[in-house]
Amino acid sequence: MIHRKLRMGMIGGGHDAFIGAIHRIAANMDGLIEFTAGALSINPEIAKASGVSLFLDPERTYSNYQEMLEKERSISVEKRLDFISIVTPNFAHFAPAMACLDAGFNIVIEKPITFSLQEALQLKAKLDETGLSLCLTHTYSGYPMVKQARAMIAKGQLGKLRKVWVEYPQGWLSKLSEREGNAQAAWRTDPTKSGKAGSMGDIGTHAAHLAEYITQHKITHLCADLSIMVEGRMLDDDGNVLLKMEHGVKGALLASQVAAGEENSLKIRVYGELGGIEWSQLEPNSLIVKWLDNPTQILRAGSNYSHLSSFATMNCRTPGGHPEGYLEAFANIYRNYAKYLLAKINHQEPTLENQDFPSIEDGIRGMAFIDSVVESNLSKDKWTPFKI
Amino acid sequence: MIHRKLRMGMIGGGHDAFIGAIHRIAANMDGLIEFTAGALSINPEIAKASGVSLFLDPERTYSNYQEMLEKERSISVEKRLDFISIVTPNFAHFAPAMACLDAGFNIVIEKPITFSLQEALQLKAKLDETGLSLCLTHTYSGYPMVKQARAMIAKGQLGKLRKVWVEYPQGWLSKLSEREGNAQAAWRTDPTKSGKAGSMGDIGTHAAHLAEYITQHKITHLCADLSIMVEGRMLDDDGNVLLKMEHGVKGALLASQVAAGEENSLKIRVYGELGGIEWSQLEPNSLIVKWLDNPTQILRAGSNYSHLSSFATMNCRTPGGHPEGYLEAFANIYRNYAKYLLAKINHQEPTLENQDFPSIEDGIRGMAFIDSVVESNLSKDKWTPFKI
Amino acid sequence: MIHRKLRMGMIGGGHDAFIGAIHRIAANMDGLIEFTAGALSINPEIAKASGVSLFLDPERTYSNYQEMLEKERSISVEKRLDFISIVTPNFAHFAPAMACLDAGFNIVIEKPITFSLQEALQLKAKLDETGLSLCLTHTYSGYPMVKQARAMIAKGQLGKLRKVWVEYPQGWLSKLSEREGNAQAAWRTDPTKSGKAGSMGDIGTHAAHLAEYITQHKITHLCADLSIMVEGRMLDDDGNVLLKMEHGVKGALLASQVAAGEENSLKIRVYGELGGIEWSQLEPNSLIVKWLDNPTQILRAGSNYSHLSSFATMNCRTPGGHPEGYLEAFANIYRNYAKYLLAKINHQEPTLENQDFPSIEDGIRGMAFIDSVVESNLSKDKWTPFKI
Amino acid sequence: MIHRKLRMGMIGGGHDAFIGAIHRIAANMDGLIEFTAGALSINPEIAKASGVSLFLDPERTYSNYQEMLEKERSISVEKRLDFISIVTPNFAHFAPAMACLDAGFNIVIEKPITFSLQEALQLKAKLDETGLSLCLTHTYSGYPMVKQARAMIAKGQLGKLRKVWVEYPQGWLSKLSEREGNAQAAWRTDPTKSGKAGSMGDIGTHAAHLAEYITQHKITHLCADLSIMVEGRMLDDDGNVLLKMEHGVKGALLASQVAAGEENSLKIRVYGELGGIEWSQLEPNSLIVKWLDNPTQILRAGSNYSHLSSFATMNCRTPGGHPEGYLEAFANIYRNYAKYLLAKINHQEPTLENQDFPSIEDGIRGMAFIDSVVESNLSKDKWTPFKI
Repeated sequence: MIHRKLRMGMIGGGHDAFIGAIHRIAANMDGLIEFTAGALSINPEIAKASGVSLFLDPERTYSNYQEMLEKERSISVEKRLDFISIVTPNFAHFAPAMACLDAGFNIVIEKPITFSLQEALQLKAKLDETGLSLCLTHTYSGYPMVKQARAMIAKGQLGKLRKVWVEYPQGWLSKLSEREGNAQAAWRTDPTKSGKAGSMGDIGTHAAHLAEYITQHKITHLCADLSIMVEGRMLDDDGNVLLKMEHGVKGALLASQVAAGEENSLKIRVYGELGGIEWSQLEPNSLIVKWLDNPTQILRAGSNYSHLSSFATMNCRTPGGHPEGYLEAFANIYRNYAKYLLAKINHQEPTLENQDFPSIEDGIRGMAFIDSVVESNLSKDKWTPFKI
Repeated sequence: MIHRKLRMGMIGGGHDAFIGAIHRIAANMDGLIEFTAGALSINPEIAKASGVSLFLDPERTYSNYQEMLEKERSISVEKRLDFISIVTPNFAHFAPAMACLDAGFNIVIEKPITFSLQEALQLKAKLDETGLSLCLTHTYSGYPMVKQARAMIAKGQLGKLRKVWVEYPQGWLSKLSEREGNAQAAWRTDPTKSGKAGSMGDIGTHAAHLAEYITQHKITHLCADLSIMVEGRMLDDDGNVLLKMEHGVKGALLASQVAAGEENSLKIRVYGELGGIEWSQLEPNSLIVKWLDNPTQILRAGSNYSHLSSFATMNCRTPGGHPEGYLEAFANIYRNYAKYLLAKINHQEPTLENQDFPSIEDGIRGMAFIDSVVESNLSKDKWTPFKI
Repeated sequence: MIHRKLRMGMIGGGHDAFIGAIHRIAANMDGLIEFTAGALSINPEIAKASGVSLFLDPERTYSNYQEMLEKERSISVEKRLDFISIVTPNFAHFAPAMACLDAGFNIVIEKPITFSLQEALQLKAKLDETGLSLCLTHTYSGYPMVKQARAMIAKGQLGKLRKVWVEYPQGWLSKLSEREGNAQAAWRTDPTKSGKAGSMGDIGTHAAHLAEYITQHKITHLCADLSIMVEGRMLDDDGNVLLKMEHGVKGALLASQVAAGEENSLKIRVYGELGGIEWSQLEPNSLIVKWLDNPTQILRAGSNYSHLSSFATMNCRTPGGHPEGYLEAFANIYRNYAKYLLAKINHQEPTLENQDFPSIEDGIRGMAFIDSVVESNLSKDKWTPFKI
Repeated sequence: MIHRKLRMGMIGGGHDAFIGAIHRIAANMDGLIEFTAGALSINPEIAKASGVSLFLDPERTYSNYQEMLEKERSISVEKRLDFISIVTPNFAHFAPAMACLDAGFNIVIEKPITFSLQEALQLKAKLDETGLSLCLTHTYSGYPMVKQARAMIAKGQLGKLRKVWVEYPQGWLSKLSEREGNAQAAWRTDPTKSGKAGSMGDIGTHAAHLAEYITQHKITHLCADLSIMVEGRMLDDDGNVLLKMEHGVKGALLASQVAAGEENSLKIRVYGELGGIEWSQLEPNSLIVKWLDNPTQILRAGSNYSHLSSFATMNCRTPGGHPEGYLEAFANIYRNYAKYLLAKINHQEPTLENQDFPSIEDGIRGMAFIDSVVESNLSKDKWTPFKI
């Protein structure tokens, strides 16, 4: 049985990038994963310099991902990469992902998973064909109290569900920052790099994923009103969406990147016959549980009372009152995936808790959400079916 | 010049009612109004008993409003009522209101103002004809920090507006309480008493009024999805509505009376180019002001810093840190109306602050909101114009 | 049996005063009390003008309290005052209070009850002698959720008590405002008007009362460190006090009027073997209940779940989610006292809930607290007994 | 110039321990430190098994720290440890620390630094003698908004300081858990393992350090009232302490481990002439700044407005709204120390920001705090000087 750190390669994430650094912290945190190789930038000099500053072995610092895959696949199995994280902008997910799979490497990939639904479906076919695995970093589903909410709803503690309100206001695109040298803003607002949706792709997909993840009810129809609030922008920076979900659940999804003064205020409320839950990413260690005829309770991450499900407690590192945050949620996705992968390598059945990371199915639904929301926005009809 | 307490009569509000007691507290609070006469119930015995328990002069405790109007109009001007508050259920607003105006009495009236838009328009015609005044008790616009938000937006402190999110979850209709002896639930869910909308009439109108009051932008189109979540109910108990407002503002209005575990959580957020405001009825003395490139501020009712507008400060009774609440907001509407009325009686021009109470125009828009939201709900088209 | 509004007179509270207006709102609110007569200022012109602006009968607007007492005692019992509220500064409580009692009038009185403990004890002797009653307006004990905390502790729901932390930061005396024309600051910082303590008399007594009221454990020893933080001031504006209470409970009482930026942040936490409660005056409608091995609960005023004691629910006017505040807490004291007094007048036994208002005993303990805290501050010994 | 990860050894922290795992996460997070060697338990079997489960090189997994030091000092400088983290219980800090220094290794050490003040002073002498460095993990000073508070006060933004209130309630020792198999509780309540103070050593020292760190004012006198609330316990589990600090600042320090229902609620408030700050560990990414005549502001970690000092921003990893927590605060101490050490190794001057980690001086003050607080508790005098 293999017992060692897993070896991670990375595509993208050089020192001119943002999310790559987050992935490395997440992968480092629990001492289960070793950052071993990288093709860190399409600019070979940045790729090299980034490798140096990150203490990467120069022999495994590559100029591009093709080179990395070619070299790494020929390394002996004792040293070969176990998986590769793809942290490039949206438009540059698909090609390296397919190449990784073709070369026999499992992948971790940023959301939205691809540039189009079609690509996502192709990725799935390739995964099926190769038997390799994919982990999608829908970070917010990594929070323990999100998992607690999901577990409570699954157990029926809220009764039959009725309502979902999910909101995701940010303010950082309130100005035309893409014209003022903000690299993050530049590619995210560029349809050739980001895809057919702006805010709905960047954060709307997170909100939709969270709603489906917590409730285990799928969106079936939506009614979208997307806006470009900042003159000169090419993609939606704001949107309000009505939802129909399975089993008669109704909902609303509100997302904006022009909500001036907001940071990253993802929040969800779900109501059933017996009560409701409320979770806010800004105070992620609390799950507020409201009851129809009883006082509201505050469930807290890391607590040792019996109310918490194993899915919550196994995704905590500290006892109650020692707040964990975004990086730990991210690290939970890496940790669960690493344990899943190790079990697979060892031909063991992963635990249910270790199977709990977003997958290709979530990626496909994310792309379908983008398609459906854009189609609905263009339609005069109230309801547009959620289609895959 | 007249200098005395104003004399108030009341129609409805006997001891089997809820909102009448609130009106009396609101009217009492500032010592400007004297509760002088009443036709407190359609049940003459309850009317009489209620008068006794409320220390009303037995000679001015009437069996019905017709009797009250007939007697009171013949009382000498030194003792005659100055205005009459109508606190009956929705369906019983119009007839007494018209009768009061015909008898020469100003009126205070609960929202929604009438049973139908048509009635509201007739009421306006009667007001125009008689020159009398009407005050509509949209309570939430009485809060000082709501007025502060309105003043800041009017001054352009948030820049051009972009987004309005207003939400109003309650949970008290999560069960079929109308069949379990809950009198409040019974009439509010009965289309013959409440009108063509349930939750949208009861609380959706508050949310819509708040959005228009704070922003001074009118709703122009809406897209509504109303639901009956509790089986056996006849009117909507839940709804999500997309909004278009003047000058390109987009919005969403979410209201529910089946959000189990929620009390009365009216909340509004408005975003402009420069920042946003957030106000929550559950913590009404704070106005959270978010800025694009500066720290969030918390403006507090009763504070003596110069940030507060006169519309806020003149509607506070206590210094900062001595919380005022729902009853004071209600009392602000009565106080402003009383001062307005006294100025009118004395042939003076009321101050702008004393003109700041909801009027027949707000009532008409409320009825039009109900009509439009119900029409939109039945429509397959995405957008329905807001029509009066 | 008498059934009518009670008639209130007032000493002090002219339009140059603050707290008198609060008393009038509190007395008005529930329609149980009629403001009937007043000696509203030591300045006869202000007294007269205040009477006019408050719509007081000119015949019962007096130049001074002696005149009021003389006239009112000779009025027929059908019209005579039922009680008199004394709302003058501290140094001017005792003489009018004694005169009221001598003239046969029940009294409501602001805290601290007198200028010295000795006076408070004399007042008690006079009350015993006359059989009249006194109500002391320790406002904060009027909040429903304070009463809920008291009831839960009395029932043993927290187990044996261990800890009390009560804090009361204000910031309004951060500068030498008494020299800048602030009349409130002027008398409160003047030992000839306020007494031997400054902040400890003004707000420390509220904190001490709240601690004893909620826990029903008396302070037995204290260790005080008082400060004058603002140069030129004559009385303490800040203080930290360690407490020993009955049955081995330990505590701390922190009060300051130079906590710049604080409004009126009275807050108390009590811990027992099984859990703790937390109540904050700035969000008075919530009682946070923490449990040793269970999630924290938030109990809410006005809720209809069975967790609330009758002492809480009978001091609410609105359903949950319609926030009540400082003025309602104040009004609860008036309402309970009015109902108590009406029962007494009618030779009935008041309910326990109607006996729930601060009394002469609380006033005496308040004066003893001031004496003890000042003595402790001057002592080099750690512990000073709480003496009456 | 050396450019590589630093190599960390660890003494203690086997898989039966708590804090060792936290140290490893903190050291891992930023990819600057490699966990290279360990003597992870006094039980050689646990030591070995822990090494295996942590993927430690078996050749560098030692049975005890003596063995580790002997072997590691003889390893070539290219592979030798750069520093050793000592994460054993209090009583077992001093001997390994001295041995590490004698063997030429820098150390990271848990607080309280030693078992006695005397030992701490000896450690300082040894540090001076060897020229090696020590980093003390007072975690809470690693939070960015704590550093922000310190920076604002240093710049005089609050004016002259007046008041410090620091509180630290926990509830986990509310029962006699040390007799129920709780290993953490067992050694922390055992005077032979923990030292002369219980809660004051475990958490009181954190509170005292935070107060001095933020204000840069030293405690000069204290007045302590410590309690053993749980019968059968040998050390204080609760305490209230009055403080005098430099320049006339007054304070209070409240700490308890029997505050049933509290998790880990460290909180500090500091007031000066112009305003105050409030920081709570449970919501560590916000710094509430209160102003005398202006609205309260909420400063947020990761924000890009200009209000944040470099000491705050350089200790953030994520943009505003992506909450960081306890582990990141811990990692900040490791990261700053690692950068400091790397600069030293390279004979460079560390930046001021990289010198910002707790040192032997803080450790000595912590031990002196314990001595003084215990002495004060036994004294009948109000004030006991803070002595080193």
